[in-house]
Amino acid sequence: MNVSELGEFGLIDILSRMAYATRDREAAAWQKLVLGIGDDAAAWQGEAAIQLATTDALIQDIHFTLKTISWEELGWRALAANLSDIAAMGGLPRYALVSLALPGHTEVEDVVIFFRGMLDLAQQSGVAIIGGDTCSAPLVAINITVLGSAAQDDHLLTRSAARPGDQIAVTGYLGGGAAGLEILRQDIPTKPGVARKLKRAFTRPQPRVAEGQALAASGVKAAIDISDGLVADLRHICQASRVSARVETNRVPILPEVKASFADRALELALSGGEDYELLFTAESTIIDRVKDAISCPVTVIGEITEDETGKITLIGEKGQPLDLPRAGWEHFREGQPQP
Amino acid sequence: MNVSELGEFGLIDILSRMAYATRDREAAAWQKLVLGIGDDAAAWQGEAAIQLATTDALIQDIHFTLKTISWEELGWRALAANLSDIAAMGGLPRYALVSLALPGHTEVEDVVIFFRGMLDLAQQSGVAIIGGDTCSAPLVAINITVLGSAAQDDHLLTRSAARPGDQIAVTGYLGGGAAGLEILRQDIPTKPGVARKLKRAFTRPQPRVAEGQALAASGVKAAIDISDGLVADLRHICQASRVSARVETNRVPILPEVKASFADRALELALSGGEDYELLFTAESTIIDRVKDAISCPVTVIGEITEDETGKITLIGEKGQPLDLPRAGWEHFREGQPQP
Repeated sequence: MNVSELGEFGLIDILSRMAYATRDREAAAWQKLVLGIGDDAAAWQGEAAIQLATTDALIQDIHFTLKTISWEELGWRALAANLSDIAAMGGLPRYALVSLALPGHTEVEDVVIFFRGMLDLAQQSGVAIIGGDTCSAPLVAINITVLGSAAQDDHLLTRSAARPGDQIAVTGYLGGGAAGLEILRQDIPTKPGVARKLKRAFTRPQPRVAEGQALAASGVKAAIDISDGLVADLRHICQASRVSARVETNRVPILPEVKASFADRALELALSGGEDYELLFTAESTIIDRVKDAISCPVTVIGEITEDETGKITLIGEKGQPLDLPRAGWEHFREGQPQP
Repeated sequence: MNVSELGEFGLIDILSRMAYATRDREAAAWQKLVLGIGDDAAAWQGEAAIQLATTDALIQDIHFTLKTISWEELGWRALAANLSDIAAMGGLPRYALVSLALPGHTEVEDVVIFFRGMLDLAQQSGVAIIGGDTCSAPLVAINITVLGSAAQDDHLLTRSAARPGDQIAVTGYLGGGAAGLEILRQDIPTKPGVARKLKRAFTRPQPRVAEGQALAASGVKAAIDISDGLVADLRHICQASRVSARVETNRVPILPEVKASFADRALELALSGGEDYELLFTAESTIIDRVKDAISCPVTVIGEITEDETGKITLIGEKGQPLDLPRAGWEHFREGQPQP
């Protein structure tokens, strides 16, 4: 059956039942919920802590194509991008609202699978999906809003708090998301296990929610998640903080599988590929040491913040020589960017 | 200049400056704001009252066409639909997040005019636009999320609180929105002043925010806003409350200009046209009397809630005869519905 045969209200009925079936009585989000899907607005018991909100659109054939990602992966990934934004503030994600524009010929089963992928990550993250909108459209357009609260006594990680002398660090490994996308788009010779791991880095990114909270608890003040690309996102921090940055490219933690399969393009994927959803942050070295003790994923220092107010990113090569960045990070409306 | 020449970050810069320029230091939303547009998430000081959230998509050539609505009106209307949802809960709207997907050839000036229309209504309503997303797309897709809080000591208006014996009432007059849309779509002979008023009912609806709060303060428990159409939205209340309804159609407050210009189609427009954003609510007659004293807009009783749990809507004609409804309210994915 497709969604035009089922109709809007039939579809909402199925999705709201699915959301309630994942209800977790232990999770604060569900405990405080007053009204979920089905009224003019969702409602929950408020709290005095600082509240957070972020929203993101995913448009078919701009952000994704159904040729390279399954409906289930799309559901996971759509929510992951928003949870990553809450993680980059050091926050606790709580609620999600999901707006779903679909062609009438979309199979109901595909929408159910999409929603299952999203609910998988929601459940794992203690997030309740409490509202949304469904409508018809000539293409798939997804918009997700995630609401959260500050975990650490109203202490947030912001883009504008980097200071000269701060070390620049990242969680995890980079390049996997962009490499996975390339493998999904075209046949690139890789070992089967490697291809599977890299594709998964793109299709099922793990937002660093617990790590973001640990950064805030450790005293970090400046952070962003790497969605546009390491250099582009570092530039966002530098511009907001009115500082510059110096990155030693040989310290950038490239995912070993990316190094093995992409040889001389591995650094480019790690620097400007985006899609990794790791956290990029800056702090004094003593605080970085505290972070390393607090979280189990790798934390790698890749450079330092400098005084120049112009937001310049200087890349240093293996032998100390300055490097040019092959291409900038993702920016919408710009032509000549790679297709999804 | 079009948006692909300006680029995503240039556009965000313009829109965020516009949002901050409307900053109202008297408004609670702005006073509690910690971080607006420009970081990974917006942040504000929370509060213990019940919190509300609603989200809505507007897709080009499904919900609207730029042939019948200007960019400025589109901005106003997009926000109005969401504020109306908060009004239907008896809530205070506070914050909005605006997700804007646009073709690269869209003129920057049009986007600015769109945002000005939206900020006009935001300012008038004490709402701060604190975040969003911009991206490219083959068509215009707008998604707005509005956050609010319960105005009346955690007392909300819900769809599920109608009880047998309740009177059914509406604010204002009906049919204007749908009539205005018809005039915008095709040449319908009307007096110039009348055409202007009806078009405006469609393009610049006034969400009943103060009225929704007054309903809650007066003891009303059940309400919805009329976006899909009076009968369709009354059915939502009846189904959620497991009751039925009896509507005396000669009591339905049809906008006089609709009666004058649409003759025998006026009742149909008022019953199933939608787009009016008036409030439909049910309560005992003593509470309805209290509402009439509390708000200055017309409040009209149009029928009563009955015991049948099946959610049936019975329409009664002028001479007491049962009437058939010419067509149902709006439902997405259904074929054969009127074009925007």
